[in-house]
Amino acid sequence: MREEATAFVPGHITGFFSAHPDDDPTKAGSRGAGLTLTDGVEVTVEPAADGESTVVLDGDELEIDPVETVLETLEAPARVEAESELPLGSGFGVSGAMALGTALAANHVFERKLSANELVTIAHGAEVQAGTGLGDVVAQAHGGAPIRLEPGGPLENKLDAIPQRARVEYVSFGELSTADVLSGETDRLSAAGKQALSRVVEEPTLLSFMYASRMFAREAELVTEQVARTIGDVTDVEGQASMAMLGETVFALGTGLSDAGYEPTVCATHPAGAMLK
Amino acid sequence: MREEATAFVPGHITGFFSAHPDDDPTKAGSRGAGLTLTDGVEVTVEPAADGESTVVLDGDELEIDPVETVLETLEAPARVEAESELPLGSGFGVSGAMALGTALAANHVFERKLSANELVTIAHGAEVQAGTGLGDVVAQAHGGAPIRLEPGGPLENKLDAIPQRARVEYVSFGELSTADVLSGETDRLSAAGKQALSRVVEEPTLLSFMYASRMFAREAELVTEQVARTIGDVTDVEGQASMAMLGETVFALGTGLSDAGYEPTVCATHPAGAMLK
Repeated sequence: MREEATAFVPGHITGFFSAHPDDDPTKAGSRGAGLTLTDGVEVTVEPAADGESTVVLDGDELEIDPVETVLETLEAPARVEAESELPLGSGFGVSGAMALGTALAANHVFERKLSANELVTIAHGAEVQAGTGLGDVVAQAHGGAPIRLEPGGPLENKLDAIPQRARVEYVSFGELSTADVLSGETDRLSAAGKQALSRVVEEPTLLSFMYASRMFAREAELVTEQVARTIGDVTDVEGQASMAMLGETVFALGTGLSDAGYEPTVCATHPAGAMLK
Repeated sequence: MREEATAFVPGHITGFFSAHPDDDPTKAGSRGAGLTLTDGVEVTVEPAADGESTVVLDGDELEIDPVETVLETLEAPARVEAESELPLGSGFGVSGAMALGTALAANHVFERKLSANELVTIAHGAEVQAGTGLGDVVAQAHGGAPIRLEPGGPLENKLDAIPQRARVEYVSFGELSTADVLSGETDRLSAAGKQALSRVVEEPTLLSFMYASRMFAREAELVTEQVARTIGDVTDVEGQASMAMLGETVFALGTGLSDAGYEPTVCATHPAGAMLK
């Protein structure tokens, strides 16, 4: 057993998605597309001194169901300490990053000898079971600007990507509960998500991704007043912005939000997937 | 049309493989496993001034079939200028890197709007057709320490990975012709490759990868006298080394070659796949 290990997992903004439930959480998931971010979560795992797992995020001890599921699956009682550059519950895939980072680091510390696909499957399944996300984990394992063509963990799904990079800006106005939205009626949302996906498959560029994301946000009726106003402000200065699914967060390519007079956080698409440090 | 674009493609050392021919070059390929490297190839593409494609590697104009096939497929007459940290023909996947980097950069310059999978498929097919490689391109698009479970381009294959990173050392004693080996009798080699793959699938760690690679090199009877001596020297100091397929090159984890008194080039596994700069 090693003393500790640290993994970095990029944040992930989903632009649009359709939900695909399944009784098997490793087959359930979402289709859609998004951007992984150089802003992310650093997760350090060390064996629990007393055999009791604990999870600490930015100094606060808290319960994050998918992280606990991952530790139980790996039979790895551990102290998990995470530092996040991104807010929880605001559409950046922080819970998915915590689950995936824990899987990668715990596999290393406890010498579980699982493959990358196996670890991603465990983290994805844990996230789906908890209802905190449907596609962040597989996107975060991939990096770049992933297109999720088929839902599920890596043994089931099919991924492609937009072969471009970009500077990304974002502002966050508050939280939205992914679990609340996903447990509600998702038919309308999923129909809009499938339409958006066709568009991006036809033209896999960042510009068409932003366009499809805005269409989706509008049709799925998820846009809050504040988000609508901010996207409008960016459009007014000929920038490209949309809403992060699911959070009260607006993201833009290049200098879209700065040009519109906001003071956004600045990062970029992350060329690599999650990795041990 | 943009003025130019540059892509970086990591080098790739194959530890072992089995050959899987198919009439369709996007389905043909290899199973196996390897390490992508922070040492790689930077490929810059700009539209050809006179409509005639040219390829320059480290200042020398030369013909690289897979690069020309990629440019023809993308209908992109271009000047391709590459700088490589790795020698050609020595088992580092330089021709695959040239093909993949050209595909990524030309797609951007000529605004062809293809997806990542489509570009990797084109580069992989071009490499297979030229007989210069069977699995480097898909590994280089993935990054890390990819396990190629099923052969072919990204629409056909199945990849996993060893979730570890490492410092990598290498020394190169000369070239081996991949095309010569692959056009000969590959039954014995492929049988050894399948055995090596089972071992790594059972235990996806870098240590088991090195062990499986050495078994493969021996059983496939590809080891030259110089390579055998060097691997032996590293083993004598309790290091892990094997032969890069296909080149007269020895690579080692950590400080294996330095410890054995060699003066190796030092790099590391590359966490990301090929990317636009």
